[in-house]
Amino acid sequence: MKILIDAFGGDHSPEEVIAGTVSAMEENKNFTAVFVGKKDVIENLLEGYAYDKARVEIIHAPDVITCEEEPTVAIRRKPESSICVAFKELKENPEASAFVSAGSTGAVLVGATLKLGRISGISRPALCPLMPTAIDGKNVIMMDSGANADCKSINLLQFALMGTAYAEAVGVKNPKVGLLSNGTEKEKGNALNHEVYPMLENAKGINFVGNIEGRDILAGDVDIVVTDGFSGNVAVKSIEGAIKMLLKVMKTEIKSTFKGKIGGLLLKSTFKKLAKKLDYNNHGGALFVGVNKPVIKAHGSSKRAAIKAAVLQAVAYANFDIADRIKEKLSLQEQGGEQV
Amino acid sequence: MKILIDAFGGDHSPEEVIAGTVSAMEENKNFTAVFVGKKDVIENLLEGYAYDKARVEIIHAPDVITCEEEPTVAIRRKPESSICVAFKELKENPEASAFVSAGSTGAVLVGATLKLGRISGISRPALCPLMPTAIDGKNVIMMDSGANADCKSINLLQFALMGTAYAEAVGVKNPKVGLLSNGTEKEKGNALNHEVYPMLENAKGINFVGNIEGRDILAGDVDIVVTDGFSGNVAVKSIEGAIKMLLKVMKTEIKSTFKGKIGGLLLKSTFKKLAKKLDYNNHGGALFVGVNKPVIKAHGSSKRAAIKAAVLQAVAYANFDIADRIKEKLSLQEQGGEQV
Repeated sequence: MKILIDAFGGDHSPEEVIAGTVSAMEENKNFTAVFVGKKDVIENLLEGYAYDKARVEIIHAPDVITCEEEPTVAIRRKPESSICVAFKELKENPEASAFVSAGSTGAVLVGATLKLGRISGISRPALCPLMPTAIDGKNVIMMDSGANADCKSINLLQFALMGTAYAEAVGVKNPKVGLLSNGTEKEKGNALNHEVYPMLENAKGINFVGNIEGRDILAGDVDIVVTDGFSGNVAVKSIEGAIKMLLKVMKTEIKSTFKGKIGGLLLKSTFKKLAKKLDYNNHGGALFVGVNKPVIKAHGSSKRAAIKAAVLQAVAYANFDIADRIKEKLSLQEQGGEQV
Repeated sequence: MKILIDAFGGDHSPEEVIAGTVSAMEENKNFTAVFVGKKDVIENLLEGYAYDKARVEIIHAPDVITCEEEPTVAIRRKPESSICVAFKELKENPEASAFVSAGSTGAVLVGATLKLGRISGISRPALCPLMPTAIDGKNVIMMDSGANADCKSINLLQFALMGTAYAEAVGVKNPKVGLLSNGTEKEKGNALNHEVYPMLENAKGINFVGNIEGRDILAGDVDIVVTDGFSGNVAVKSIEGAIKMLLKVMKTEIKSTFKGKIGGLLLKSTFKKLAKKLDYNNHGGALFVGVNKPVIKAHGSSKRAAIKAAVLQAVAYANFDIADRIKEKLSLQEQGGEQV
């Protein structure tokens, strides 16, 4: 199994990308790492590591797409960029199983959609981070977290189907789907929610449990949160900001008294562990669900640990047949006479 | 100055509402408390307190609207409810300066709009909590946090004008307005955002600073966050849930080691202070901005401290001429030839 890695994506690329990938290779022996990017630079950096040379390949790509570039334009104008070259390989080589990039989110999404292609029947793929919840070891999938700012009800229905396929693939039994809304009652929601609610109730192969509010996202009661990419992005980032703010304010408060300082010292390792646990970027990347092969978008600020997690996630997902599971969910609806 | 208080609104009414109001009267001597609700019950409860009888009035209202009732139906069918009676008094009595309720949010909003009335020119009033930010003593106003699930660009423009008037009234100089979006770049956003962005750029009397992301809401960089009531509700509640989750997970982590337990004991008062500081419900209620007099919606779970804060907030706001300031902002736009 070959995992393609964008060696020139992310704030700390290529150094940290290569370091993290080598580290992932040590932990999992069942894949070949295919670095995509400037060959000489990658070769030079690899010289600093001891690794199994038979398990590393390099595909040369002289160009790089930056985060400042308009994604659609960049994908069109830079066919020799690491992202475009990787997607071409992913599409054409049956051995290429998944792709990991910490580069421009927009370019990865546009590239995946245009070059790798959507799963037949899926109109809009979604970018789906796994977020740790209050229940230890339990994650929640946010569908969509920003790939589609404007959605129609059919998109949200497909997010529910894809999210269920994804959750089942990672081992969740009968995963619960919640519709993000401004209240738990069925009557709550905006026009989009009102339209999709009965569609979710009638859909086959999903376990729809009704509306959930922002405050319930992390409670661990549902496995999949369905919403448009605008609201999903607002939710994910609001959570990120709240945790960051709380830890910051806490630090200041702790330092303001002598008793607090001592307590803070004793809890230092606990806080560190916690901050790491709650930072979803440490749990690998966000899966771009709805394209033909697994595409993992790691955070732009990823260092080696985050890259390692994302590569190991890609190896795992390559075995999960998520695309096939999604096709199965879609076919269930067609049998029911619904147009999806 | 008379402050109307819904004695029969909230999970802990009427007991905690009366206790909190009496406590507010002790702190501020410049208002008369007008309780609206079942007269005999209120009188009986008041007997347990020492207070200036000349500063208390009761307006009898035999009916109560519960949170389970559909707001529009309840407002129409229960003219003798505490909410309806209070809004009638607020509209007709020039001495009645503001209204505080911890009752059904929907009924308070519908009642305020239908019975008290919107400020001329404002198409949609907004429910606006003040949220504490990472900067000590600095709050951010969320406009709208749930009154209007579906919004047009004109509504968002008016939220920006009203939010600026509100922030200026509470003493913020040249308050910064941010548009909530899924990215900071101007190009980011959904169709609604794209439509309103240039309107905000061209509006007079506001200090529009561009897009802000969910993660920046609590950073303290902007004073007003403008968004539709659906996304605003998602943001506010996601923040609430994240803080709740973090404190919960922290508690578990702290208790899991001996060192942690000792540290936790030393930090107990710090955590308590922090939880209180970050809970925006302790900072008074959310102002329903855009109706003719100040209407403060306290949280349904408010106990005496929260009610006290909301009553004191109502007294302060009654002096702020927020409605006049909003009219002024509107007139600025009309002079500029824009249709608002």
